[in-house]
Amino acid sequence: MDERCGEVSPESFVRVVRTRSAVRSYTDAPIDSRVLEELLDAMLSAPTGSNAQAWSFVVVRGTSALRRLRAFSPGLVGKPRAVVVACVDGSRLDMASQDGAPDLCVTMAVNTLLLSAHAYGLGACPVTSFQPGLLRVLLDMPEDIKPVFMVPLGYPAGDRPMSERRPRSEVISYEVFGRRAPATGA
Amino acid sequence: MDERCGEVSPESFVRVVRTRSAVRSYTDAPIDSRVLEELLDAMLSAPTGSNAQAWSFVVVRGTSALRRLRAFSPGLVGKPRAVVVACVDGSRLDMASQDGAPDLCVTMAVNTLLLSAHAYGLGACPVTSFQPGLLRVLLDMPEDIKPVFMVPLGYPAGDRPMSERRPRSEVISYEVFGRRAPATGA
Repeated sequence: MDERCGEVSPESFVRVVRTRSAVRSYTDAPIDSRVLEELLDAMLSAPTGSNAQAWSFVVVRGTSALRRLRAFSPGLVGKPRAVVVACVDGSRLDMASQDGAPDLCVTMAVNTLLLSAHAYGLGACPVTSFQPGLLRVLLDMPEDIKPVFMVPLGYPAGDRPMSERRPRSEVISYEVFGRRAPATGA
Repeated sequence: MDERCGEVSPESFVRVVRTRSAVRSYTDAPIDSRVLEELLDAMLSAPTGSNAQAWSFVVVRGTSALRRLRAFSPGLVGKPRAVVVACVDGSRLDMASQDGAPDLCVTMAVNTLLLSAHAYGLGACPVTSFQPGLLRVLLDMPEDIKPVFMVPLGYPAGDRPMSERRPRSEVISYEVFGRRAPATGA
């Protein structure tokens, strides 16, 4: 184990990772502001190509603001206690490398947020079904801010079934595409 | 803490998350096959829109295959002991929802792999600088498999400086874009 990982065993870290599932139903329990700030800090440590950090996030917690977001976002179901809107910041893009995959960096930040929220017992899910134009108006975003994901957050209500996954052998190949077993002795 | 998270405190989970950095220099130490398989299982638990799992991964460990990958991939520096090539599987796309952001699902899987590798003391980084056409030939991939990332893996050699990040107040807004402090009492 990496000495920088403190007391967490890799196995237990991966166990947290593997028990995450999409949560779309939330209790009324509020989210402590300090917890939310921890999650945001974790999110901002995500990989970003050429360290461009061409991203911007709006955290919505106000009751009427959340109601408005839900009214305009078909993908936002349940009643989350907070929503993080994750955006590409186009004004930073001339500083980015030619790789320029700012959507992918925002996506890694969102995944880091989802995993960290799960570690804190919070439920969340990535939502892409919304109208970016309307969202931009509701949240007073300038033109060069492009929303990519909404992430609703709240304490999970009810069961959280894990989604079924394709058999591993269908999606992992070894050495060349389609070879379904690792080379022996590798 | 979520009871499903076992013995990991949320704080220690987030500490692992926040100490990850891009690693591009590796020792000769081999990666245990069981560790690699754990990492792949963790990766496959990543979020995927509409549970489409329109993804495919090729794990390259052979010495000469790794040498060929490095020769054709400017972004692949250092001498990793394994490379995971993360792809969109276009043949699954008619099953996906109209959101159809398969690149973003693959990106979440890659981020999950990066974090899990870090928990195991491995170094990794996401690489997008390569020629997909050449990669497809080298790894015998059909046309509908679209490589998005290469992820080199190996035990870190030397220091791993954390990249500097923009001030939090530049990238996080509260309630509306540009408001730099949470509402009091929120």
